[in-house]
Amino acid sequence: MSKKTLISHLRNIPDYPMEGVQFKDVTSWFMNPQDMNEIVDSLYEMYKDKGITKVCGVESRGFIIGAALAYKLNAGFIPIRKPGKLPYEKVSIEYKKEYGFDRVEMHKDSICKDDVVLIHDDLLATGGTLLASYELVKTLNPKRIMINCIIELTNFKSKDKFPKDCAVDSFIEIDEFEGVN
Amino acid sequence: MSKKTLISHLRNIPDYPMEGVQFKDVTSWFMNPQDMNEIVDSLYEMYKDKGITKVCGVESRGFIIGAALAYKLNAGFIPIRKPGKLPYEKVSIEYKKEYGFDRVEMHKDSICKDDVVLIHDDLLATGGTLLASYELVKTLNPKRIMINCIIELTNFKSKDKFPKDCAVDSFIEIDEFEGVN
Repeated sequence: MSKKTLISHLRNIPDYPMEGVQFKDVTSWFMNPQDMNEIVDSLYEMYKDKGITKVCGVESRGFIIGAALAYKLNAGFIPIRKPGKLPYEKVSIEYKKEYGFDRVEMHKDSICKDDVVLIHDDLLATGGTLLASYELVKTLNPKRIMINCIIELTNFKSKDKFPKDCAVDSFIEIDEFEGVN
Repeated sequence: MSKKTLISHLRNIPDYPMEGVQFKDVTSWFMNPQDMNEIVDSLYEMYKDKGITKVCGVESRGFIIGAALAYKLNAGFIPIRKPGKLPYEKVSIEYKKEYGFDRVEMHKDSICKDDVVLIHDDLLATGGTLLASYELVKTLNPKRIMINCIIELTNFKSKDKFPKDCAVDSFIEIDEFEGVN
């Protein structure tokens, strides 16, 4: 399946969750086994030789492909969660959003210094949550951190916000308004 | 790996989220690739011959093994979500909780009448959310609905709450207080 075909299966929701936003509804991919397999298998090909030991999925859409990819890579799966959702000892980072602040958390014992970590989310737009997730994982001092998204919305130019030694890769790069009438 | 070994790797958190509850922290499994693979592969063996076309994962811990299992079964993955999280046309069910009411939602076009559906969550305790998820999926009239959890807490005896024609199966049955001092 070509990326063009995959993009044609991606549902666009205009003005969601607020006016002017062209929301990319990845559930339209996940409900289709061919699309889901194409995404997981392609990400597996991108990362199979990187020695990844842990895949961190960002709550909660990042859990979906993150977990399937962890399984396929034979890596552990670590949830990065919103505040108050994890029951054990945690590390936590606060970050600025457009309006106010938010926080991401993970279990303190989920990463060790020998780990090679892939942080996964469905979509990179402003990059706020993913950058906070990177800072969060970094507090646990793994050997290496990489970042992956299924979609990068290129109009936000968010890759530049990440440190140079952190590879940020997406499977599909699109402009938020591409193909939208 | 034996189920006994797997159970020995499951972290118990006493008095979380409230006094008297012995919380089973499944993230202690997911962080370990051997445990994660054992769970996904065992569930795959349980369901590989059932003709499953869609796996519905219950937000949000049910997304993790649900998505990996959907991938392995070559089925679509459908998120069952808390209110206000899905962007497209939805079906929705309200259900009673210990204090007040809650609601589960899914996209209207995610299931069709030819689908054989497996609803997955990490844990079956009181069964409230899973029973609501069953009622929710039923509104879309699939051919068959099955329910699966990694853990059933047998002291709640919740299997009896489901209709007789709906198979409810767990990989591991434990008493909430088993092995707890």
